[in-house]
Amino acid sequence: MEKNKLKKLITKIFVKHKLSKKHALICAEALVNAELVGAPSHGLSRLKMYCDRIKKKVINPRPKIKIKKISKSITHIDANNSIGFVAADIGIKKAIKSAKETGFGLVGIKNSGHYGLSGYYAEQAVKKNLIAFAFTNAPPAIAPHGALKSLFGTNPICFGTPTNSKIPFILDTSVSMINRGKIRVASRTGEKIPEGVALDKFGKPTTDARKALEGVQLPIAGFRGSGLAWMVDILSGVFTGGNHGGKVKDPFDDFSGPQNIGHLFIVMKANIFVKNFNKRINENIKRIRRLPKLKGVKEILYPGQNKYKRFNYNYKREIKMNETVLNELKILNN
Amino acid sequence: MEKNKLKKLITKIFVKHKLSKKHALICAEALVNAELVGAPSHGLSRLKMYCDRIKKKVINPRPKIKIKKISKSITHIDANNSIGFVAADIGIKKAIKSAKETGFGLVGIKNSGHYGLSGYYAEQAVKKNLIAFAFTNAPPAIAPHGALKSLFGTNPICFGTPTNSKIPFILDTSVSMINRGKIRVASRTGEKIPEGVALDKFGKPTTDARKALEGVQLPIAGFRGSGLAWMVDILSGVFTGGNHGGKVKDPFDDFSGPQNIGHLFIVMKANIFVKNFNKRINENIKRIRRLPKLKGVKEILYPGQNKYKRFNYNYKREIKMNETVLNELKILNN
Repeated sequence: MEKNKLKKLITKIFVKHKLSKKHALICAEALVNAELVGAPSHGLSRLKMYCDRIKKKVINPRPKIKIKKISKSITHIDANNSIGFVAADIGIKKAIKSAKETGFGLVGIKNSGHYGLSGYYAEQAVKKNLIAFAFTNAPPAIAPHGALKSLFGTNPICFGTPTNSKIPFILDTSVSMINRGKIRVASRTGEKIPEGVALDKFGKPTTDARKALEGVQLPIAGFRGSGLAWMVDILSGVFTGGNHGGKVKDPFDDFSGPQNIGHLFIVMKANIFVKNFNKRINENIKRIRRLPKLKGVKEILYPGQNKYKRFNYNYKREIKMNETVLNELKILNN
Repeated sequence: MEKNKLKKLITKIFVKHKLSKKHALICAEALVNAELVGAPSHGLSRLKMYCDRIKKKVINPRPKIKIKKISKSITHIDANNSIGFVAADIGIKKAIKSAKETGFGLVGIKNSGHYGLSGYYAEQAVKKNLIAFAFTNAPPAIAPHGALKSLFGTNPICFGTPTNSKIPFILDTSVSMINRGKIRVASRTGEKIPEGVALDKFGKPTTDARKALEGVQLPIAGFRGSGLAWMVDILSGVFTGGNHGGKVKDPFDDFSGPQNIGHLFIVMKANIFVKNFNKRINENIKRIRRLPKLKGVKEILYPGQNKYKRFNYNYKREIKMNETVLNELKILNN
């Protein structure tokens, strides 16, 4: 479907589900962006879930979002169980404003929900020549180091910086060895999953996707990745007032209450310490890209370059959706 | 040697090398702390190197450190090639002061040197009930993803938070699969190094430590770890005005000029968004430690617990040093 037509359709669906036009548009933009950057797992495939959560009253379509200004640089937001996109949109805009005015913006958000891709928010700051961290927690997916039970979410670490080119540096990396979606697909097709990414329910390493689904996913780099996931849970949950320590509900499976997810944005002016940040980052990237390459490697890429390529490719084309998603769209629009 | 006696000896050696008494004491504290927490690679084994760098005039023993206050929360420090400990000590203290006064403190340091353990600085903030990030870059040790040449340092990610107990949460993790020191030891003993941690000079995976030393170390988790190392290089080098992009000199091997390392401290009041942070973090840690454990795992530990145990154990004992270090101490003291 053509992207603007799709945006209109999503907006219409959200408005039908009681969101204001303004909020519906924010959500539609974020979902279509996920499709364009090649992350359909964070795009249309979640639309029905969001609508279901609204219907079951665990997302509040008309939230009374409280914005508490703590200082010129620091803001705390109580999202009142809004859909995550809306709270995060307000949050990153506040952080950007603070950073532009004072050099630094810090925004903590509580009582929010799944907000899509962290990189989407970091990118908004980077476009204003700001450096940004975005943290959010998520439902249990990976086991803390030494544990036989999942507790941390895939808890991405997201960092973005201007690059002096139109392609921003956006690192948006989960701390899980493998995407749960990939295990789900493999369990359907019967394919094996790689070694070292998951344990079965008895805590034994497995390459059997079905056994992995009953067991746990592993963090990257053992104790170190587990520590990074823990850090993200503390920053986005404990620190902001959001849920934490495994209490964030799975948005697809658990309608017993709102998710109460927390997000944290840390935004800084890129040229606060040096006048020539753009020249410096340009030189940094050039040096790294010029290194001798491993056999078979054409180009050393910085985080964000692949996404940008996908975006540009998809931007000129119709957005493709699978049968399931098309059917869901049809039903939601009825 | 008894730790206070050792501190006095180190102080005396640094004063002999033209450091002020105050600066010499700061360095002695940091080096003895590294021994106490069980990180001798960042302790006494580096003392001769620091002294050599002073003698060769690539560390400035009497630096004119410029402290530029950008706002109540933000400070930029030009360390004038001081020994890293001194600049970092000033920096973390400024960041702590700002965070206590305004909720957050941001300090960028340029023209500094190797500052020892990042966790040492984060811990100072945590003891004041603050959350802290500490970033520093380092000489080339790991190859960017796809490259056949080392460029990033082991670039640690360091994050600390109060825990409502006397044992702080201090994550201080390199993004390298393996410590270079371990490869050096294995190359001497002829032991094999693990698979997947290094490549030989042709870019082929190797378990031969000697070949690994000629080749490159790999980042954790491939593209993701490479991205994290890149992030740390940008934050501590490009952003602050320090060296970056592989230009930080090896302190042991390269006396052709100062290191010009950059450090970045981001410190935040733990209870800025919630009043009961300590109660929340305590609950968070309790939930995770209570999880069912993998076979053979006695206890789920948070980052910092092992270090604390080592510190307590070593605190009551003499500090052990090997023959090489003892000889170096003797010569430096002559």
